[in-house]
Amino acid sequence: MGRRSWLPIATSSPFSLANIPFGIISSTTSPVHRPATVVGAHVLDLKVFAERNGFSGLEAIHPHLDVFSAATLNRFAQLGRPLHGKVRTYLQSVLADDTPLPQILRDNHDLRAAAIIPLADITTHLPMEIGDYTDFFAGIHHASAVGSLFRGPANALQPNYKHLPVAYHSRASSVVVSGTPVRRPWGQILLDPTAEPKIPTLAPCRRLDIELELGAFIGKANPLGQPVPVAEAEKAIFGYVLMNDWSARDLQTWEYVPLGPFNAKNFATTISPWVVLPDALEPFATAGIENDVEVLPYLRAENKQYDIRLKVDMKTAKSGEEATTVTETSGKNLLWSFAQMVAHHTIGGCNMRAGDLLGSGTISGTDDRSRGSLLEQNQAGRKTIGLAGGEERKFLADGDTVTITGVCGSEEDGLVGFGECSGQILEAVETPFFR
Amino acid sequence: MGRRSWLPIATSSPFSLANIPFGIISSTTSPVHRPATVVGAHVLDLKVFAERNGFSGLEAIHPHLDVFSAATLNRFAQLGRPLHGKVRTYLQSVLADDTPLPQILRDNHDLRAAAIIPLADITTHLPMEIGDYTDFFAGIHHASAVGSLFRGPANALQPNYKHLPVAYHSRASSVVVSGTPVRRPWGQILLDPTAEPKIPTLAPCRRLDIELELGAFIGKANPLGQPVPVAEAEKAIFGYVLMNDWSARDLQTWEYVPLGPFNAKNFATTISPWVVLPDALEPFATAGIENDVEVLPYLRAENKQYDIRLKVDMKTAKSGEEATTVTETSGKNLLWSFAQMVAHHTIGGCNMRAGDLLGSGTISGTDDRSRGSLLEQNQAGRKTIGLAGGEERKFLADGDTVTITGVCGSEEDGLVGFGECSGQILEAVETPFFR
Repeated sequence: MGRRSWLPIATSSPFSLANIPFGIISSTTSPVHRPATVVGAHVLDLKVFAERNGFSGLEAIHPHLDVFSAATLNRFAQLGRPLHGKVRTYLQSVLADDTPLPQILRDNHDLRAAAIIPLADITTHLPMEIGDYTDFFAGIHHASAVGSLFRGPANALQPNYKHLPVAYHSRASSVVVSGTPVRRPWGQILLDPTAEPKIPTLAPCRRLDIELELGAFIGKANPLGQPVPVAEAEKAIFGYVLMNDWSARDLQTWEYVPLGPFNAKNFATTISPWVVLPDALEPFATAGIENDVEVLPYLRAENKQYDIRLKVDMKTAKSGEEATTVTETSGKNLLWSFAQMVAHHTIGGCNMRAGDLLGSGTISGTDDRSRGSLLEQNQAGRKTIGLAGGEERKFLADGDTVTITGVCGSEEDGLVGFGECSGQILEAVETPFFR
Repeated sequence: MGRRSWLPIATSSPFSLANIPFGIISSTTSPVHRPATVVGAHVLDLKVFAERNGFSGLEAIHPHLDVFSAATLNRFAQLGRPLHGKVRTYLQSVLADDTPLPQILRDNHDLRAAAIIPLADITTHLPMEIGDYTDFFAGIHHASAVGSLFRGPANALQPNYKHLPVAYHSRASSVVVSGTPVRRPWGQILLDPTAEPKIPTLAPCRRLDIELELGAFIGKANPLGQPVPVAEAEKAIFGYVLMNDWSARDLQTWEYVPLGPFNAKNFATTISPWVVLPDALEPFATAGIENDVEVLPYLRAENKQYDIRLKVDMKTAKSGEEATTVTETSGKNLLWSFAQMVAHHTIGGCNMRAGDLLGSGTISGTDDRSRGSLLEQNQAGRKTIGLAGGEERKFLADGDTVTITGVCGSEEDGLVGFGECSGQILEAVETPFFR
């Protein structure tokens, strides 16, 4: 049985006392962006909590209390995992039914009134100021399926795929928090790939897709020129979020040779607002997909993953609140751990900074219902996907809302989850200057 | 004849009164990072100048004087080109021999003593906090030459090349200012590309290369979802720097399929410290390389480039101060203007922020001495390049120093240049944990 709180927490809430994730909020009564944690259907405003001596029982954080007045979690993230663990454990203790520190919050009605806010009254913001965003390609079932569609099963994976965590630098400026609408991008599309010469058309994307991913935020920086050993790499990670790396497939096909995806990816990437600490996910650690080649020593480590139950739900303008679950899979479906990704990313000396974001790559299982992109589900545009209310889709239509959720553990022990990573597709802008 | 200054300016200086670029300095007497401009062999400390009423003759800047107390130029950059122009013209006027405002600085001995510092006494720093760094591929002679080496002359350029400015997202964290040493990266290399199965080795890069580029810093942001029309795009640019986009060719060959270059590029990119304003380069505007395909309307604009005389010099550990010029070319050797790059980058709605950096791609001419990368000069490793003192190179050796310079105009009218973009190669780290 999980530890109970004196705050009401629905058993179905991903924010049980076993979680204690961190985010950035503003509220109807205060527009200041500030750190908070979430428990059930309430947040604890950590700025107010810190200012009013809420941390009086945790001496270790006293020299760093100003991190809770910051508008992002970057400085908190830099404090390192041991201190994050202490803050989490302390907050669990303060919020527990059987708290040994009732005077801090439970019985302090002034502080409760000031620092505890219903989720309905707050807005979440990007939790971190993101320096660089790197997107990996570690979802081997996705890489195989997509490679197979385009190059046939014999050449599905490139020769480098199992030797290194393939990745590309992506765009940090357009990472947005869950709830932000996503404008359908315009771009160059090759309508008839067989015609010669190849002449592209400018049009709104016709093959707008999702990519179900996990994101990891860096907390601990490494200096330029100093690689991070794989055994140390997990310590670099502050926490995890869900990610939808929206993708314009038709733009991608035309633009990506020879330097990789560009405008197909940089119009928006949505992340969930609450950063879940590695400590909270640790009970759900499991082995990822086994690599059947012997990797180089700098990448040798267990492929540690988390058994997060991932789900993608779609609503349409017509279906209203009736959602269709289009994907169910697990976070463990990755060939490389985030520690291996960090080790590879830094092996040449590249410096990571607090706030850097790493995407896992699209997470897919092996059966039809477990595919993390529509491209796989529709077999590169050959099949339609049935939705609630008899609607059909190949790719996303205007008005569609895609919501990713991810949760670990049981209701009995207390769920540890991310909340929602959600975005609705808006129609492309109509701007005459393009034409 | 160019306007003269009451400060001594050597006719060979790239920092004539016609220039007035902006950078970030610290000095032997003050470690604070702060804005400055450079004239001849002196800098004018703009923090001190602003604090002591140096801008009393320029009312338009008064509401924004705090930008000169910032540790980067980001906030100055956001003020927009008209105001940058006013500041530049004002500083020219204050510094001119025939200044109409002698009391501001020329005859104000206290302020001269406080604000004018010899170049030898200052250190330059990254001029901007870089949000995202995007590297284009607009040097068509480079793209043709490299494509021809790997795919033959008939398939040198990919079908998309003349229809869109090809680009990839690169790494912002590892952009460093001129003078920063560059550590040779380790990485995965396929020593025998013909052997099957393909098994990579971890080793220090053996094909370390340069890429001669121009960089443009964004000043004016656009909101997510709002493309920038090509006719407006030049206004988004704050100014220009020289760039050496160091490249690990052997890492690149193995890693870049299918998502583009990654560790081959993210270990270091060097930029020159002084941001040269578009206004200063305007007299040297010229037509770039003509595109022989009809581009889509959103990219239709003159291909405006600057006739910057670009030069790459190499010194080795053995040659000491004796440099060999390995490349001489012009900034006009690009197929796409920076305005076209911005228009393409934003066509899908991607937001640009002040401090974002765009690289032009490697700039090469068509003859042997005008190639902006060693890869082209050595014909993908087949030829050696002769250096001073009888040394030979294919790629860079430890201890080599590569210095890019770029200058416009004549000594008579006053040179407008960038100073140096320089870096020395350090040997790879020896770290047993890799092995």
